[in-house]
Amino acid sequence: MGNDEACVFCAIAHGRAEASVVCEDEHLIAFADLQPVTPGHLLVVPKTHVVGLEDLPPETGARVWELAHRLGRALRRSDLRCAGVNLFLADGAAAFQEVFHFHLHVFPRFPGDSFRLVADWRVRERAHLDAVADSVRRGLAALDGPA
Amino acid sequence: MGNDEACVFCAIAHGRAEASVVCEDEHLIAFADLQPVTPGHLLVVPKTHVVGLEDLPPETGARVWELAHRLGRALRRSDLRCAGVNLFLADGAAAFQEVFHFHLHVFPRFPGDSFRLVADWRVRERAHLDAVADSVRRGLAALDGPA
Repeated sequence: MGNDEACVFCAIAHGRAEASVVCEDEHLIAFADLQPVTPGHLLVVPKTHVVGLEDLPPETGARVWELAHRLGRALRRSDLRCAGVNLFLADGAAAFQEVFHFHLHVFPRFPGDSFRLVADWRVRERAHLDAVADSVRRGLAALDGPA
Repeated sequence: MGNDEACVFCAIAHGRAEASVVCEDEHLIAFADLQPVTPGHLLVVPKTHVVGLEDLPPETGARVWELAHRLGRALRRSDLRCAGVNLFLADGAAAFQEVFHFHLHVFPRFPGDSFRLVADWRVRERAHLDAVADSVRRGLAALDGPA
């Protein structure tokens, strides 16, 4: 069932590769990221191989979110430095996905940590934003429309 | 019900402030971010005022995720540039939260866009990662333990 021999997260999920596992059940496994942004950086991973939002079953997505929510709250109760929490999903290479097995990042934040976001955060005009909203509504219609 | 007079997202959710709304229902509203990272940057916001993961009801979180999942897939079907999608949650000022009403970012990505992550991504030793996993398990126990 959805076990890709070449996939490192499948190998972890099925016990063929080492990981520092926080918890697992029939559907999910959560373990420490090998290249953590901060100490406590975790990945929540479905055990069945799915790539991203496009092939993620909604019920699996709901489970991933629920566990990420719990882990975010657990980080604040742990002895790790945690003044805030980020959840981050990279869906597609253009969005910085590097392992093509769906995973939601959960990592603690604290003043002085090294994580930064860089972007062009200029305020945009209403007409532009309204056109964007129209475009996304057309995308929703395409998603929900007849195949 | 959870309507904070001073909160800009409550004002949008209850029609007292302008926004470029993509969709809304009884529980949620999704609209274009005023300072988009890329064209198509959306926020998914519960209509009831909650601050973050700590006071977010699990059923509301599940709804937010479900809509963000749909919007991510809609972006790929829209006429906006979208070769990938990021979902991002900032929970707490230390995690770059700026509006203290829970919101999940959904934004399209494409080659050459201006969004970047900066961090110290060194591979860490197994002993460190195992200790981190232990710490998070203790945090989970504290979360689930007697009040």
